[in-house]
Amino acid sequence: MKEFVNVALVGLGQIGNYFYNEINTKKKEIEIKTGKSIRIVAISAKNKNKKRKFKINKSIFYKNPIDIFKEKKVNILIESVGLSDGISKKVVELALKKKINVITPNKALIAKHGDYLSKIAEKNNVNLEFEASVAGGIPILKAIKESLATNQFKKIYGILNGTTNYILSEMENTNETFDKVLKKAQKLGYAEPGNPKLDLNGFDAFAKVRILSALAFNNKVSKHKSLMEGIQNIDLKDIKIASQLNLRIKLLGISEIVNNQLFETVHPCLVSKKSYIGNVNGVMNAIIMQGKPVGESILQGEGAGPGPTSSSLFSDLLTIMKGNVNKPFAIPTNKRKNLKPFDIKNYSNSLYLRFEVKDEPGVLSLITNRLAKFKISIKRIIQTPDKKNKRATIVIITHNTTELNAKKSLSIFKKNKNILKFPVLIRLYN
Amino acid sequence: MKEFVNVALVGLGQIGNYFYNEINTKKKEIEIKTGKSIRIVAISAKNKNKKRKFKINKSIFYKNPIDIFKEKKVNILIESVGLSDGISKKVVELALKKKINVITPNKALIAKHGDYLSKIAEKNNVNLEFEASVAGGIPILKAIKESLATNQFKKIYGILNGTTNYILSEMENTNETFDKVLKKAQKLGYAEPGNPKLDLNGFDAFAKVRILSALAFNNKVSKHKSLMEGIQNIDLKDIKIASQLNLRIKLLGISEIVNNQLFETVHPCLVSKKSYIGNVNGVMNAIIMQGKPVGESILQGEGAGPGPTSSSLFSDLLTIMKGNVNKPFAIPTNKRKNLKPFDIKNYSNSLYLRFEVKDEPGVLSLITNRLAKFKISIKRIIQTPDKKNKRATIVIITHNTTELNAKKSLSIFKKNKNILKFPVLIRLYN
Repeated sequence: MKEFVNVALVGLGQIGNYFYNEINTKKKEIEIKTGKSIRIVAISAKNKNKKRKFKINKSIFYKNPIDIFKEKKVNILIESVGLSDGISKKVVELALKKKINVITPNKALIAKHGDYLSKIAEKNNVNLEFEASVAGGIPILKAIKESLATNQFKKIYGILNGTTNYILSEMENTNETFDKVLKKAQKLGYAEPGNPKLDLNGFDAFAKVRILSALAFNNKVSKHKSLMEGIQNIDLKDIKIASQLNLRIKLLGISEIVNNQLFETVHPCLVSKKSYIGNVNGVMNAIIMQGKPVGESILQGEGAGPGPTSSSLFSDLLTIMKGNVNKPFAIPTNKRKNLKPFDIKNYSNSLYLRFEVKDEPGVLSLITNRLAKFKISIKRIIQTPDKKNKRATIVIITHNTTELNAKKSLSIFKKNKNILKFPVLIRLYN
Repeated sequence: MKEFVNVALVGLGQIGNYFYNEINTKKKEIEIKTGKSIRIVAISAKNKNKKRKFKINKSIFYKNPIDIFKEKKVNILIESVGLSDGISKKVVELALKKKINVITPNKALIAKHGDYLSKIAEKNNVNLEFEASVAGGIPILKAIKESLATNQFKKIYGILNGTTNYILSEMENTNETFDKVLKKAQKLGYAEPGNPKLDLNGFDAFAKVRILSALAFNNKVSKHKSLMEGIQNIDLKDIKIASQLNLRIKLLGISEIVNNQLFETVHPCLVSKKSYIGNVNGVMNAIIMQGKPVGESILQGEGAGPGPTSSSLFSDLLTIMKGNVNKPFAIPTNKRKNLKPFDIKNYSNSLYLRFEVKDEPGVLSLITNRLAKFKISIKRIIQTPDKKNKRATIVIITHNTTELNAKKSLSIFKKNKNILKFPVLIRLYN
């Protein structure tokens, strides 16, 4: 007799709606791959009558997703509302407690409550799968959890946000300003039309870094605050100067074990135009891992959008339908470590500093003296005069220096009549 | 009570021996990840007393691997002898018939007998896993079988042989001849010391192409002969000329659906130095896929060597130990297609042709007339005289032309007193 798998979808935005349609059109294929028959028994969203790309079956619509569990027998819940708390957490928590498997692309939820939810899932022997929460269509989580499971990782980093990577690439290609390109990204659906802040300020990438760290290092999902910088302050001028130096600006997420401590950051980096990561452009995401014994592994793919996300949601769906029970974070949560955070003050990089100054005698020596005081030595210096306005741009590339020294040395430039604005600082990736 | 999983290893060469040691050192980790305890109960190889990097337990050594099954209860057999037939096939077949799970990195065996063996595995509900057979440490098979399972693929291609990629990179970097670099590769363990032929002539890459096709297109493993060219005839001269043209020579394996027919090839390609694939150098492998809806996916990693191979063997081991039963080729063998082969005569490419000629009047027109006769039009031509020897090198880049026309047009150059050797032909990747 055919076995049926009952699915409930909560959240019917761009992603939920696309996946709803994909399930309905790929029923036969799913049956060949799993031996089981899938059916959507309930759907829920804020607005029943909103105009959607793919028509929904309103006879199975629930205004309140909690009601689904009272009325329907559900085997798998797919949550794509996308909140870190609220109804997202409520419905996932309830499902797991009722021994219902859960699939979600919701990185905010997993980064915040992943450990708590995974304990419920483990206790009830059901799956909590979230492949689509990191890097869209790139099958990175399964790769770490299963394919590369016995490797020892020291570092994992990459481009984890398609929106910001698109904006940076487009600014370089078109010479258009940040604001102009952001508007274009919103028009194309790469950035949230209402509030793109969580993409731009690095929050989205940081949630992904936390999830990757947890998996790669068998660690609990970290709660530490760390260095998180977005691309809001990247100026077209910096992109152009970088280009002349054969560099390119990328927003990198980095997670690394340093002296047995967990080091996680998200910030713009200057990378070589000749490097691999320097050539991952547009909405592409890429993740680079150093593992033992596998060596360097790279996975690249489209990092966002309903298509790639749907591909990863299906991966989770097939895992569950084939009856493969997994721990959400590969090993039991009580066996996962609790690594101490690395003190960001000791984070050390070569820096790109851009000063906008009045073209007055003594300004350069003011800057170089100040840097010298904090033992920041200079690798390269480029002064470009703007005679008409009696101004100059001074770009300095430093040798390696710590965050602490950099911060201290730059502090005095907040109020100096010859320094026209607080200097731009971008770290070079080494 | 602890559940034990009994493993037998047949083949203790570089890979088998390394993996033997990895299992023994990672027992505890495996137990955390699977909840089960692993033990090696039997090993077998040609030579019991050969000097090996990692010491083996001779008390569980079997001269004849067939005897293992008579005396020991085995749950998983790991075969790494590496033959397409003979004892490799015999022992795998026997194990599957006895309902024992099998793991193998043996691409020759899977490319030749994969369908037959998978039928036995499916019938007996055991696993036949071969992640390590393609691209070493890159988790490409699981990615296609599970993570990207519901995507529709049209094309999959890449660099599938680390030995040849190392040789080509090294020739370009050092300006050394093929023979010299091959010797270096053998010394470093990248190429077989005895018989590197199967790497060099494309056979190894072709076996991998067949396995990838089977998975990506849900097809039976193809048996068709097709275009298979290795790098044996690549001259340092061509690498240098290519470099001047901003091109680089790569041995690519390509599998594609064209007009519902299966098109598989392995041959050297000229790719742009600026392209992604043109920058995958040394022993690195890379695979590029075009899928719907996921878009372009890239996986890159070390393609050979005991470390990366061991990483993939562990992936299979954990799959089996967690009790995840999979069909060897993701879907039941009787549901897999039998695509017709694409006629290679119609394969069309822009070509790089290098002629070594006597510096006599009329030679160039002889060549261009001949090409014109077969409607091969010329995109670019570079003639370099070698006055001292009264010779010249003529390099022609053609517009797209079919294999058939190329073959026909070049045929007369086999015996022509002014053409000093049969022209070199390298296809441009488009």
